[in-house]
Amino acid sequence: MKTSINMNWKKGMAFETEMNGHKIVVDANEENGGKDLGPRPKGLMMVALGGCTGMDVVSILQKMRVELDGFNVRIEGNLTEEHPKHFDEMKIIYEFTGKNLEEEKLKKAVDLSMERYCGVSAAYRKAMKLNYEIVIK
Amino acid sequence: MKTSINMNWKKGMAFETEMNGHKIVVDANEENGGKDLGPRPKGLMMVALGGCTGMDVVSILQKMRVELDGFNVRIEGNLTEEHPKHFDEMKIIYEFTGKNLEEEKLKKAVDLSMERYCGVSAAYRKAMKLNYEIVIK
Repeated sequence: MKTSINMNWKKGMAFETEMNGHKIVVDANEENGGKDLGPRPKGLMMVALGGCTGMDVVSILQKMRVELDGFNVRIEGNLTEEHPKHFDEMKIIYEFTGKNLEEEKLKKAVDLSMERYCGVSAAYRKAMKLNYEIVIK
Repeated sequence: MKTSINMNWKKGMAFETEMNGHKIVVDANEENGGKDLGPRPKGLMMVALGGCTGMDVVSILQKMRVELDGFNVRIEGNLTEEHPKHFDEMKIIYEFTGKNLEEEKLKKAVDLSMERYCGVSAAYRKAMKLNYEIVIK
């Protein structure tokens, strides 16, 4: 299936695009010739991963009738020292809050996302190390 | 170098994070239990790539004293048919507008980004096919 975006240069270092009807701007910081009108692009790789697996997990837990009070997906990325600096590892920390949460169910939901559902991790796994961890708060 | 983000679940399918001081929300569409409060996460993989290489090219052309009237970075992604649906190919189309643009300089800037500077393409190249094309309008 084909999908596409068009990123329009807004002078300086800023680029703007529309995705699913939402405007997204990326920009460099002032040190690098930008005006900080939006986030740096590379970090969006982490947002893509966290959003993708986070939505999977919420959806699977809903089907299992597991109720969450809170849920955070923390992504820790490691960038190489050598140029071009790129991610060679990402760790996903799933932090759940709720009453009487069963670790086994949470683990099942996370495993299903990481092994079967999440298309972002399916791609990243070929390019870097991916680890994950579950924390119940 | 370590870097991290924290994505906070906002109920439904929405997650919110802050990156470089900018709020980013991702969400599913209504069909998938969301409220469309932000774009789908997977597509952000294309924004990361387009922004990264686009900023490189602008910066290199500035150093070469090449003046652009306009510049678009179009990303065409191909998603696999099988699950989990993930990108197995991305094509980058660099569209330049300007007076007396020399194709050779544009090509040099694009090649430098793709081969030496852009950390997003350095990662994606391990996971999928990457192609690119230059269009002068």
